[in-house]
Amino acid sequence: MNHKREDLKYMEKAFELAEQGLFTTGENPRVGCVLVKDGRIIGQGFHLKPGEPHAEVHALQQAGKQAQGSTAYVTLEPCCHHGKTPPCSQALIVAGIKRVVVANTDPNALVGGQGIKQLKEAGIEVTIGVLAELGDDLNAGFFKRMREGLPWVRCKLAQSLDGRTAMASGESYWITGEAARRDVQHWRARSGAIITGVETVLQDDCRLTVRPDDLPDNDKNKPHFFAEQQPLRVIIDSRLRTPLNAKILQQQPVLLVCAGASDEQKNAFREIDCEVKTMPGKDQRVDLAVVLAYLGEQGINEVLVEAGATLAGAFVKANLVDELVIYTAPVLMGASGRPLLDFHIDKMTDRLHIQTISMQAFDQDWRLRATIDYT
Amino acid sequence: MNHKREDLKYMEKAFELAEQGLFTTGENPRVGCVLVKDGRIIGQGFHLKPGEPHAEVHALQQAGKQAQGSTAYVTLEPCCHHGKTPPCSQALIVAGIKRVVVANTDPNALVGGQGIKQLKEAGIEVTIGVLAELGDDLNAGFFKRMREGLPWVRCKLAQSLDGRTAMASGESYWITGEAARRDVQHWRARSGAIITGVETVLQDDCRLTVRPDDLPDNDKNKPHFFAEQQPLRVIIDSRLRTPLNAKILQQQPVLLVCAGASDEQKNAFREIDCEVKTMPGKDQRVDLAVVLAYLGEQGINEVLVEAGATLAGAFVKANLVDELVIYTAPVLMGASGRPLLDFHIDKMTDRLHIQTISMQAFDQDWRLRATIDYT
Repeated sequence: MNHKREDLKYMEKAFELAEQGLFTTGENPRVGCVLVKDGRIIGQGFHLKPGEPHAEVHALQQAGKQAQGSTAYVTLEPCCHHGKTPPCSQALIVAGIKRVVVANTDPNALVGGQGIKQLKEAGIEVTIGVLAELGDDLNAGFFKRMREGLPWVRCKLAQSLDGRTAMASGESYWITGEAARRDVQHWRARSGAIITGVETVLQDDCRLTVRPDDLPDNDKNKPHFFAEQQPLRVIIDSRLRTPLNAKILQQQPVLLVCAGASDEQKNAFREIDCEVKTMPGKDQRVDLAVVLAYLGEQGINEVLVEAGATLAGAFVKANLVDELVIYTAPVLMGASGRPLLDFHIDKMTDRLHIQTISMQAFDQDWRLRATIDYT
Repeated sequence: MNHKREDLKYMEKAFELAEQGLFTTGENPRVGCVLVKDGRIIGQGFHLKPGEPHAEVHALQQAGKQAQGSTAYVTLEPCCHHGKTPPCSQALIVAGIKRVVVANTDPNALVGGQGIKQLKEAGIEVTIGVLAELGDDLNAGFFKRMREGLPWVRCKLAQSLDGRTAMASGESYWITGEAARRDVQHWRARSGAIITGVETVLQDDCRLTVRPDDLPDNDKNKPHFFAEQQPLRVIIDSRLRTPLNAKILQQQPVLLVCAGASDEQKNAFREIDCEVKTMPGKDQRVDLAVVLAYLGEQGINEVLVEAGATLAGAFVKANLVDELVIYTAPVLMGASGRPLLDFHIDKMTDRLHIQTISMQAFDQDWRLRATIDYT
């Protein structure tokens, strides 16, 4: 038997489980666990939401006494601290686990290799890094927040083949097809916050909520709580021009971020349970980096920017975007159309390079996922 | 044995042979032929160039007397007329072929189903349409010229992810990487003519020749005559501003098309063996439709437009482009950059729809091939 192939197989299964928590783990990472003995899965689990047991606990409960002498596949280094739940490293040791296979180590300062150290000190064989790239993608937000205090920022855009997002008049509705629009629901649903600009609110009167029925088929079986709890919608609105009757305000939580406004203005929003913060930057605009740091402090791992070319361009230009999610529709909209990102470069040497994560067809549209090389 | 699978297998082989003529068949279609008897290939051939034997003749010569009772796979309906070579339909009948499998019927008015009719009248079983889609792609130019008198027009463009082809200053060199630039050699090499504009000549002092050493590996083993004969380079140059010392004029054939110029101006070019034609349209510009009709008359099947946003945009806007070949580089060039195609649309309902043929990675770049729906 090829040991490595077996490790890959069970770790893949553990990641399938981890993905069940895609829409619910909140400030926590998505984690899955599989317990294997004599070539058989004897226990499995995933972390559902903060305060509920970790993946390892579910798997150990399911395995019961059989856990003795088994191998545990855990997508993330087991925790070693008493948080909202007791430490998983101890639970694995007590259960008599023989070997632990881990994808990613935990950059959380409270764990940071201590979980693995405890396991090794208890005589457990530990293998690290199996399918780590899957975890890097699944928990990019949690990892970035643990390391830098900031959420992972995705910027979603939809353009024509010739790089236009709207007509000169602003007309833009339905550039992409249904499959692409359903895919957007996936990115909203996994985000702790969705950021937009007041111009988009004024132009489209959008809600930016998750509509569970419109999720892609692949996501339909995953737990979610969107009926009770939507992602935080954040409106960047320097001068508080959002209309009090805007549809986006009808469902909380919403955070309005301004660069300065009167108490009277702010109170009008607070009266309808809408939070208002002042985070001024240069030129009487909102300081976007401060907004992201604030969201990181609130335990938000992933942020989706769904804005027009001006605000999205400002995020890109300020080196704040980690990932682009760009849908390209098979249409030509002409040279008068509005640009993808409204930022300006004079010389070819200053152009921004990106790294493709994937290119995928969604019916007639194409979706590019890419990171930006700001170096 | 699954009859149909066998037909697909041998027709695929016939198309592999046909592709050997990709760079040399000129005004003729690319055609391949395989003769099969008792599950064995007993003869094969392809058409190399005008005046040389057709694919069927090569295959029949190779098979000799064995041809009796065999099945012929021919990518295009056999010709039935005495052109530069005798009719292939008769040769197949005389050789005693039992069955003929054809991908495409020949839209050439001189053949037009008569080849197949002759075969059937001689008692030969004929199957039509096997892998016809491969022939539609391989001979799109020949087919269009036979049906409409016009060449198949490909427009090659290279852009950033945000739809920009150059900085505002015009700076644009090397947007894409080496693999994409080698692929461009493929499209040049299979074209009978390459159209550019005087602005591109003035800006880049380009040659627009085929460099056989730079062809993609897949094309390196195909016959070519580029040392002696380059595709016709056509410069759209309304007022004959091309400098007499431009590099593109150093290797003939070149055709300059103007909207009007003095005899003195024209003679200066003719003295260096460069042809000059006057094809005036509106607004003292060249009539692009007239240029294409002229190229069709000259027996040119495929045209590659390699021009800036203005001329390429004019071709698109005039409904003259059959296929877009767009390389997208993983860079953002910003909203001040020059557009992909300089044409203008006011309303979303007027946007141009395209149909994807393929999306393929070339190192870090992406190549989209697509047709435009002008309807």
